[in-house]
Amino acid sequence: MSKPAGKAVLASTIAKTFVKELEDGLAVLEKAPLLVGFLANTDPAARTYAEWTGKTSQELGFRYELREVAKENLEEAIIDANNDDKVDGILVYFPVFGGRQDQYIQQVVNKDKDVEGLSHIYIQNLYQNIRFLDSEEKQKSILPCTPLACVKILEYLGIYNNVLSYGNRLYGKTITVVNRSEIVGRPLAALLANDGAVVYSADINGVQKFTRGDGLRHVKHVVSETELTMPEAARMSDVIITGVPSPNFKFPVEDVKYGAVCVNFSSEKNFTPEVKEHASLYVPMTGKVTIMMLLRNLLRLHNNAQQRKALQSA
Amino acid sequence: MSKPAGKAVLASTIAKTFVKELEDGLAVLEKAPLLVGFLANTDPAARTYAEWTGKTSQELGFRYELREVAKENLEEAIIDANNDDKVDGILVYFPVFGGRQDQYIQQVVNKDKDVEGLSHIYIQNLYQNIRFLDSEEKQKSILPCTPLACVKILEYLGIYNNVLSYGNRLYGKTITVVNRSEIVGRPLAALLANDGAVVYSADINGVQKFTRGDGLRHVKHVVSETELTMPEAARMSDVIITGVPSPNFKFPVEDVKYGAVCVNFSSEKNFTPEVKEHASLYVPMTGKVTIMMLLRNLLRLHNNAQQRKALQSA
Repeated sequence: MSKPAGKAVLASTIAKTFVKELEDGLAVLEKAPLLVGFLANTDPAARTYAEWTGKTSQELGFRYELREVAKENLEEAIIDANNDDKVDGILVYFPVFGGRQDQYIQQVVNKDKDVEGLSHIYIQNLYQNIRFLDSEEKQKSILPCTPLACVKILEYLGIYNNVLSYGNRLYGKTITVVNRSEIVGRPLAALLANDGAVVYSADINGVQKFTRGDGLRHVKHVVSETELTMPEAARMSDVIITGVPSPNFKFPVEDVKYGAVCVNFSSEKNFTPEVKEHASLYVPMTGKVTIMMLLRNLLRLHNNAQQRKALQSA
Repeated sequence: MSKPAGKAVLASTIAKTFVKELEDGLAVLEKAPLLVGFLANTDPAARTYAEWTGKTSQELGFRYELREVAKENLEEAIIDANNDDKVDGILVYFPVFGGRQDQYIQQVVNKDKDVEGLSHIYIQNLYQNIRFLDSEEKQKSILPCTPLACVKILEYLGIYNNVLSYGNRLYGKTITVVNRSEIVGRPLAALLANDGAVVYSADINGVQKFTRGDGLRHVKHVVSETELTMPEAARMSDVIITGVPSPNFKFPVEDVKYGAVCVNFSSEKNFTPEVKEHASLYVPMTGKVTIMMLLRNLLRLHNNAQQRKALQSA
């Protein structure tokens, strides 16, 4: 008996499931929020992403403005948008300078307008498993959009088990994440561990194990050493998520267990088409879901701003 | 006629000139501020630096506490210190995890206790040439301690011309900075440009020119492209500041113009002793001045906290 081939699930299909939520969110607002995207490079991938974001935003009824600026004017342009009440959300298309200077630029975006959810306080809250910005729990902490997109994809694919209680819906699942960047891989591993999974986080330096901990203050994830190699971790994983930014990296099909779910968030194809001979479900790209998460974050930021206004006038 | 040999000036000599300022600052306080240092690595250089900091702090009358923690508990330990009213200043001895995760950890330190001056808002204020945290100009923005130490060393060496007006005291000076890290080199280049110098900022990717600009809102530095190579820039520089973290990098003596001033802030010796055949003044290390700047920042943070308290009770 030949094994059944796995099924590819496109990000566009998953993205559609957020249309109603976003439209409903918009419908109750007096005016559609304005998202401003900054493009300060000539990277064709960044331009494509910028165009997609604009197209999706406008199709759904959001206002979107692409501002193309020279690198050396980007910092000032962001500060102007930070200070402009007419701007609700800000998005920067990276890379600009590359390396750490881009991280600096990222933090110039005011957290109250940061749709990408990359402001330090949001990432710290994620690691600390703190879900709100205020003690009254009125203002939600924003989740970084790519890790959030991966979570939403796993929810769509039925990996999260809704019969289990909230915060425990990945209990029993083993997940390998191949990427431990500060932007996606490490926050993603923490998010999944906070939801109950055993997560093996792999990068070129080795493998770390993220599990849910029992902190005194917050139940947050715990990172521990492991002797496992990436293939060993992958072979026991129910889910493999990759994000290796190289056209040369191809995840070895033989390390994917039969019936596993594979998701690639890199803009490069980290799996070969043969992955479907092992995987049950395979999501080759995630960008379109990520754009939905940007807009979802935009609505949350708008709500947070309303909460702050209400507080001030109270 | 043989050329006169340049003079080495030790950081310890320069550091002594800050003793009175720090003791005077302490004398008016009810209680000496407490500085907490976190050591979460086994790097002997970090331990030496931690011990120096402790020794210097205590000799001058500050309170100092070294907390040795395991890497995986560092984030929690910092958050505890952030929330502890008894702690006035926090210092983390890096590297811990290395790379970007260390930058994350750095931002976990509450800005109100950040003696290193590496919190995003302080760096952004530096680049924007904003000197205060509040519009009333009561709370001073903190400068990152190593760039600040370099400025203070140049002041000591007479490179800053006090006859010129404040903010213009490096006018006419050309300075090469060999290092463009986000921690020291780039902020240092901006600081020096904001004070009127023409700064050539060199790293392995090339040379950039930092000059004082004429922004509409703040007079801040401007970065422009230059065709100059590092040797070309260095040969026309009055001051050469190096910070290359490699034992193999030695700045070529022939690129130091006769009478130039050389300062090395790397923990590796970036100049050979022969530099004195060209340089007029040579500062081989800066660490002891940096520690003085940490304590100076601690006093400023304490003052900022007092200002905030006064504001709250007003």
